Amino acid sequence: MNAEQVLNVLNPELKNALADRYDAALPGMSAGLVDWAYEKHYGRDGVDLKTRQLCTIAALTAMGGHTAPQLAANIEHTLNAGARPSEILEIIWQMAVYGGMPASINGLNVAIKLFDEKGLDPRS
Amino acid sequence: MNAEQVLNVLNPELKNALADRYDAALPGMSAGLVDWAYEKHYGRDGVDLKTRQLCTIAALTAMGGHTAPQLAANIEHTLNAGARPSEILEIIWQMAVYGGMPASINGLNVAIKLFDEKGLDPRS
Amino acid sequence: MNAEQVLNVLNPELKNALADRYDAALPGMSAGLVDWAYEKHYGRDGVDLKTRQLCTIAALTAMGGHTAPQLAANIEHTLNAGARPSEILEIIWQMAVYGGMPASINGLNVAIKLFDEKGLDPRS
Amino acid sequence: MNAEQVLNVLNPELKNALADRYDAALPGMSAGLVDWAYEKHYGRDGVDLKTRQLCTIAALTAMGGHTAPQLAANIEHTLNAGARPSEILEIIWQMAVYGGMPASINGLNVAIKLFDEKGLDPRS
Amino acid sequence: MNAEQVLNVLNPELKNALADRYDAALPGMSAGLVDWAYEKHYGRDGVDLKTRQLCTIAALTAMGGHTAPQLAANIEHTLNAGARPSEILEIIWQMAVYGGMPASINGLNVAIKLFDEKGLDPRS
Amino acid sequence: MNAEQVLNVLNPELKNALADRYDAALPGMSAGLVDWAYEKHYGRDGVDLKTRQLCTIAALTAMGGHTAPQLAANIEHTLNAGARPSEILEIIWQMAVYGGMPASINGLNVAIKLFDEKGLDPRS
Repeated sequence: MNAEQVLNVLNPELKNALADRYDAALPGMSAGLVDWAYEKHYGRDGVDLKTRQLCTIAALTAMGGHTAPQLAANIEHTLNAGARPSEILEIIWQMAVYGGMPASINGLNVAIKLFDEKGLDPRS
Repeated sequence: MNAEQVLNVLNPELKNALADRYDAALPGMSAGLVDWAYEKHYGRDGVDLKTRQLCTIAALTAMGGHTAPQLAANIEHTLNAGARPSEILEIIWQMAVYGGMPASINGLNVAIKLFDEKGLDPRS
Repeated sequence: MNAEQVLNVLNPELKNALADRYDAALPGMSAGLVDWAYEKHYGRDGVDLKTRQLCTIAALTAMGGHTAPQLAANIEHTLNAGARPSEILEIIWQMAVYGGMPASINGLNVAIKLFDEKGLDPRS
Repeated sequence: MNAEQVLNVLNPELKNALADRYDAALPGMSAGLVDWAYEKHYGRDGVDLKTRQLCTIAALTAMGGHTAPQLAANIEHTLNAGARPSEILEIIWQMAVYGGMPASINGLNVAIKLFDEKGLDPRS
Repeated sequence: MNAEQVLNVLNPELKNALADRYDAALPGMSAGLVDWAYEKHYGRDGVDLKTRQLCTIAALTAMGGHTAPQLAANIEHTLNAGARPSEILEIIWQMAVYGGMPASINGLNVAIKLFDEKGLDPRS
Repeated sequence: MNAEQVLNVLNPELKNALADRYDAALPGMSAGLVDWAYEKHYGRDGVDLKTRQLCTIAALTAMGGHTAPQLAANIEHTLNAGARPSEILEIIWQMAVYGGMPASINGLNVAIKLFDEKGLDPRS
């Protein structure tokens, strides 16, 4: 897949949102991010988008709560890639083993808040 | 699954290896680790072992190279859970987006060395 | 000590608070956390609770400000374990050597705010 | 230069602000920080203040968003050392390579907000 | 205490070892480090040296294995401050809760190797 | 500048070295890295290569010693961009303020070893 096809699944608004937010201050930012993340990584063959997104959830959780805004955005992408809320919570909780309890709890808080806002049952 | 069933798939020797290495110095270490990681996390329902292991690869890579020994051990577990070498490399490379290039390259080096030692084609 | 005895000293409400907050979304979370942290670690012999808690303050500070919520909770536990506010501030400040100045200053801010809210003299 | 000369360029109010905020709780904090950071590091010969400050921006960005308050303060110091807003944004964006995209985006958000508050054109 | 008194307890050779290793390349490094760490932090009143050292062990473990050389040096300082090997191992293991399992296991490996080299019983 | 022009200054062999090492296992890795790091970041206008490289040294140091291989490679790039050894050491030492002493000392060790291997006076 190319970046456009990937983002049509994960977040069709992302490129424009990034452009509106960043390109005036930093020309080329949105194009650079989209090409690097979604063309050069998510667009590659060999691993499906849902698995890639769950791995991103794992990494953002384990890296610690400074990634909370990116974790929230990627939880939405992961739902769009076909994961269920309970799968996302399982992976965040698993990270307590690797990134420690504070990182995992911060991740759970981000996910639970988001599912609540979207009216999603966390156990579905 | 319980921890024993999980470890029968991932690494049947792990509990004894941990006990031999750590329990004399730190009584209860192997039992604590196995219960926490493999009973209380990997043994949970809702996500299959292969996906859990790929998420662990993602997290260990993104957290940086200080986790190299654990990354090597978990790459073996991930192969045992049914992942192909190329899937593991894809996930490690994806982490360049989130954990940065140094973390991803250190992860690639761990994986390529291990596949080489085991005579596995990295593109298989 | 077992986990219940430990938590009777540090925070008798913790298990119920965790259960109320997390168990509906992630069944077994509160039991897993309490068993791992308070039975399998704080409950061990060999180091008193006050020293264990000061070490936790040190770690949470050095790991950086993404652990601010956990640092606040653990400062309360550390007071309950018998530490004085000034001891806690000393340890947080010492972390400037190991975790860097930003981590230490973020930790000081958490502690000073909490002592202020509780009406505790930071130099007592 | 000594610390006083450095701070006359970067932030003439810093020592008093630190003293007011921290010294009552932690005696000697402001003197310790100023001596360590501005006498023993920034005051050294061999690298000009603007370059030192841009390197600090790089480090605080790459270390992740838990350093957001320190990043904001140091962006002001970096402007005072003679850097232009666009130079600061370039360095923050470069950190996407090393610290990953979330760290870089969090850094951009801090800078864009600050330039907006100060009425500075980010492309100047 | 002043830095000299602290180092007489923890490591009487440290200042000279640092000077021999670093001062030719980076003039003033040993004096800066000793003043900052041992005069301005460990020399402060309010917390005894053994507790300060155990907190340093906690922080270095939780920050991850890139601090292995500093962890080894500080385990020696901590023994010199009066801690027993088993206390040090307890604190390192406790960090599995906060810094995650890889960080804790890497720390255990550093400590067990050092105790073995020094002929110290890890359970003493 | 484009990536080729940047790498002609910093490291003319880099693309081939990356291709030889990684592309068989992970097709497209060298092209992806070079485009992202050297076309989309270092190739941008507004900050000269020497300053960009010193900022990279700062970030890799502050992120901790798991980046030691990348730090060594980037010290070479930084020398090629026109920085003197003493400037590089100054920046690494400054990071003790932000990333903590262990990160800075690990960085100094990498630089001193490299300058020694290359017969460069660290104070030049």
